[in-house]
Amino acid sequence: MSFTDLLIGRPLASFEDKEQRIGASAGVPVFGLDALSSAAYGPEAALTILIPLGAAGLVYIVPITAAILLLLVIVFFSYRQTMAAYPGGGGSYTVAKENLGESAGLVAGAALMTDYVLNVAVGISAGVGALVSAVPQMEKHTLLLCLVILVAITIVNLRGTKEAGAVFMIPTYLFLGTLGGAIVFGIFKTLVSGGHPRPVVELPHVKAASEAIGAWLLLKAFASGCTALTGVEAVSNGVQAFKEPVVQNARKTLTIIISALLLLLAGIAYLVHAYGIAATDPGAPGYQSVLSLLLAAVAGRGVFYYASMGSILLVLCLSANTSFADFPRLCQRIAADSYFPRSFLNRGRRLVYSEGILVLAALAAILLIIFDGVTDRLIPLFAVGAFLAFTLSQAGMVMHWKKQEKVNRPAMLVNGLGAVATAITICILILAKFLAGAWVVVLLVPTMVALMVAAKKHYDRVEAETAMHGPIDLSGIQPPIVVVPIERWSRITEHTLRFALTISPDLRAVHIECGENVDSLCRKWAEEVQAPARAQGRPEPQIDLIDSPYRFILQPIIDYLLKLERDHPDRNIAVVIPDFSERHWYYYFLHNQRAKVLAGVLMLKGQRRIVVCNVPWDIE
Amino acid sequence: MSFTDLLIGRPLASFEDKEQRIGASAGVPVFGLDALSSAAYGPEAALTILIPLGAAGLVYIVPITAAILLLLVIVFFSYRQTMAAYPGGGGSYTVAKENLGESAGLVAGAALMTDYVLNVAVGISAGVGALVSAVPQMEKHTLLLCLVILVAITIVNLRGTKEAGAVFMIPTYLFLGTLGGAIVFGIFKTLVSGGHPRPVVELPHVKAASEAIGAWLLLKAFASGCTALTGVEAVSNGVQAFKEPVVQNARKTLTIIISALLLLLAGIAYLVHAYGIAATDPGAPGYQSVLSLLLAAVAGRGVFYYASMGSILLVLCLSANTSFADFPRLCQRIAADSYFPRSFLNRGRRLVYSEGILVLAALAAILLIIFDGVTDRLIPLFAVGAFLAFTLSQAGMVMHWKKQEKVNRPAMLVNGLGAVATAITICILILAKFLAGAWVVVLLVPTMVALMVAAKKHYDRVEAETAMHGPIDLSGIQPPIVVVPIERWSRITEHTLRFALTISPDLRAVHIECGENVDSLCRKWAEEVQAPARAQGRPEPQIDLIDSPYRFILQPIIDYLLKLERDHPDRNIAVVIPDFSERHWYYYFLHNQRAKVLAGVLMLKGQRRIVVCNVPWDIE
Repeated sequence: MSFTDLLIGRPLASFEDKEQRIGASAGVPVFGLDALSSAAYGPEAALTILIPLGAAGLVYIVPITAAILLLLVIVFFSYRQTMAAYPGGGGSYTVAKENLGESAGLVAGAALMTDYVLNVAVGISAGVGALVSAVPQMEKHTLLLCLVILVAITIVNLRGTKEAGAVFMIPTYLFLGTLGGAIVFGIFKTLVSGGHPRPVVELPHVKAASEAIGAWLLLKAFASGCTALTGVEAVSNGVQAFKEPVVQNARKTLTIIISALLLLLAGIAYLVHAYGIAATDPGAPGYQSVLSLLLAAVAGRGVFYYASMGSILLVLCLSANTSFADFPRLCQRIAADSYFPRSFLNRGRRLVYSEGILVLAALAAILLIIFDGVTDRLIPLFAVGAFLAFTLSQAGMVMHWKKQEKVNRPAMLVNGLGAVATAITICILILAKFLAGAWVVVLLVPTMVALMVAAKKHYDRVEAETAMHGPIDLSGIQPPIVVVPIERWSRITEHTLRFALTISPDLRAVHIECGENVDSLCRKWAEEVQAPARAQGRPEPQIDLIDSPYRFILQPIIDYLLKLERDHPDRNIAVVIPDFSERHWYYYFLHNQRAKVLAGVLMLKGQRRIVVCNVPWDIE
Repeated sequence: MSFTDLLIGRPLASFEDKEQRIGASAGVPVFGLDALSSAAYGPEAALTILIPLGAAGLVYIVPITAAILLLLVIVFFSYRQTMAAYPGGGGSYTVAKENLGESAGLVAGAALMTDYVLNVAVGISAGVGALVSAVPQMEKHTLLLCLVILVAITIVNLRGTKEAGAVFMIPTYLFLGTLGGAIVFGIFKTLVSGGHPRPVVELPHVKAASEAIGAWLLLKAFASGCTALTGVEAVSNGVQAFKEPVVQNARKTLTIIISALLLLLAGIAYLVHAYGIAATDPGAPGYQSVLSLLLAAVAGRGVFYYASMGSILLVLCLSANTSFADFPRLCQRIAADSYFPRSFLNRGRRLVYSEGILVLAALAAILLIIFDGVTDRLIPLFAVGAFLAFTLSQAGMVMHWKKQEKVNRPAMLVNGLGAVATAITICILILAKFLAGAWVVVLLVPTMVALMVAAKKHYDRVEAETAMHGPIDLSGIQPPIVVVPIERWSRITEHTLRFALTISPDLRAVHIECGENVDSLCRKWAEEVQAPARAQGRPEPQIDLIDSPYRFILQPIIDYLLKLERDHPDRNIAVVIPDFSERHWYYYFLHNQRAKVLAGVLMLKGQRRIVVCNVPWDIE
């Protein structure tokens, strides 16, 4: 059993694909962790913006959450429709491309990719950040912890979709169970207490208002809260990861994810309002997350509190998994349309698109390393990509319905509503976060689109140049002129010549003279090569001596070959060179690598008629 | 004119060698800077050891210097003899190898190489150190200054021996002129004043004695002063760099160098004693070098002082040049005996052994970077190597004279005396400096010898394996079985096939099936390849389809080839693969490099009968 087998499992045959597909319950951890974990930071983000309003801010969290939930429901219904319309996998890229044109598709694709990469870095770093704030001794290992978690998630995903589902199922349902349980218990207590529950643990005093209420502040709070919607897109791209009936299973998964998220968000908003929990200032001492305050208020700081907080941390870290499930699939779709390197199309040994997984891991690792494991500054870049994709996807669906023979007006209305809502949201997002970092996304997306278009153009050009229409041209093909560069008479030379002599009757040996005495070589050539050839009635191979006063070896050979090619426009030239290989790499220092350099240089010279033949010789 | 031409000059033809040779006056800067610059640090090193003796120490500098000068004279005469005996270049390596056996030669070679590398790092760093102590603002750029000087010296040396001689001549003779002038002037003033000259600039007070005089302290002072002898060896290796008559010119150069060094050392010792100049503590504030004190005492701190100090700094920096002149020659000699990579034998475009120059520069750069430009800690490693080489060289010469038909007793006596004197010195050196760092040399030299022996063994093995005795075996040679891996039908495929068809009648195309539909490829093959071949009356090329359920592409091809090789033990297998090259490197990301990887893997598999033929295709 090889190390690779141990690490990511035995290779899976292509026909085992069906067995790797997942059901709805496994679909939730695979595709839903990003969306679900937003319950942990969406409300907090909105409440943080509302801090300056003091207690008055708490009143507004309910309508703001209601607006977000409405958006979520709209997005949910429109993706449900999208999945049915594109059972092959209908992510924003596909939908926008098919209905709004290639550029819209590419913008959606680039936006989503940006978001997925950010999600991995920010998710892991948020989880680790929460952990180190609980265990401050770990703080100096922040980056290491982030990278270890990243590697672990990468390996689980390389092991295949099914395995990822199995591994991440327990933390996902633990998170839903504990947080959901706390919310239900809190609502119960609120109702029993007539709307004014007493917190088990005393809450920090809500600061006095330092700002008057304003529309812009509310919009900013809404925009921040909208981060709760990121990750909702994932299932639609991964329809084909599900068992038959694929669409039903995918829809079921999306329904579970969205319902759970809805209930969590609504419950949190209700309890925050009922208990009067304001966000604390993230930078200031005494900071505590809203969920920590809420859990302590509802259930006290007992075992339940710590179990819940633990599952929240875990789910934050693992929210990166959604990116791992979806990013490779997105890359594969883009690569299938030639906008991305073809290698993203290859399914790895466990039937997942391994290259996409590795590229995602590498990009996230780079971000984590650059920001030393603390990615707070990346948060403003977040969500813009997701909403750009949402908008394009919904708008695409509107066109999709319109193009149908029988226009489906209700469906069109749902998607149209979604498009308008998300478009408005994206304007708010960019306005609210432009200076804080959203401008990066605004620059990055067009750059990525330009690169993708360039890749496509290149593939098209290569395709046009190499496309073969018609049969092979067999006219005038004749054996190549074979050139064998010779340094001295040795067994390697003999071995090389024995091959060279068989592929063409037209052979020329070449020796570069650098001032040493060549008489012995010429004598050997006459005795050891020409005489036996003559004896067998074969043509005698000639040896050309080329004087090199400046002691250059390769240049004269290359010049000789290029001249030969020019002089024989109808012939191929085959350069036969010995390829000397060693048992140990360190012996390479002891031999010149001229043959390898020659082969390399000849390739670069771009002469289509000079073929380099490497005759191997391995030292025993 | 290319950049290389501009930087290191046009290529020189091998027949221009004579014009590149140097005379005795150019020989002094090329080979003598290391020896001459020791006047600047040898006496200082001895005096520093004598500090604890206070004013009494000054008395001893005269006999210690006398002992060093005696050693220098012995070494001088024995090298004079060696050069006459080995006009081809008789460094310690050659002399020890020829007369004491290979291992003695290798020890001498390794010791000298170590010393040459150290000399470059320490020399440059000492010069720059003196400069930054004069201009403290430069201190933060110490490493950069060191590297800039290193690069400059490297380039001058790459431009050829003659040019190095011309460039370094002015600073060398300026140094000799100013320091020599100061010494003569000082001696004159001493004599005039009846042995008690008055210093122009007040000297620092000589500290009171803190230690009693002891033999060990005097021996240590002697050992430290012996660093003045390093670099004396250089001329003997480079005899062939001189104009005809080579031996006379080389001897003349050595005589100039040694006489100048002798006079400088003797003069300094005399004046130090006459003026009562004690060394100041190098680490302590108010530190001034002995030469600085001496120059100021003799001539005051005027223009002459600064010109002299400037030329001393320059010569310290340039003392590295001796290593650049000799190290490559030494490497070439060792490589000629197969103990070193053969590439050290190649003379570069300016007829110098460029690889040796570059390796020396790289090693010195590594030392400078590791020690951040301050190489004080390397000084104790110094001189051990040189004296090891001296001893072996002299002992070798004793054997050399003994082996002559008519034993030359006076010559033998001179070299014998030299051998004994240097052997005693080396014992003192190792004892005095073992813990301070000489142990590194004691470990390094055997390691280097072991590596060199291993290299020789490898070359011998390869030579034995590849030596060809007798004529080429032409029996049973037949055309190879040609295998062409095919991905799809394209112009590249056609181009590759058109070559493959000409080199053998026995062609097999191979396609790896990864679950995609192969009907279209099979149909194309029948229509576009087999049908035209049939029409021309050629054998129809077959296509083998290989199923790959695990989506591996290369492994099935490799397995196929290895099986073919096993099944046909009497045939060569030629794998013909298209080599796709791009105009721009960044396009490589867009194509798989499978052909290149296949070629690489097949080379590594070490099958001597599988020849890889790369048919180029460059995208226009």
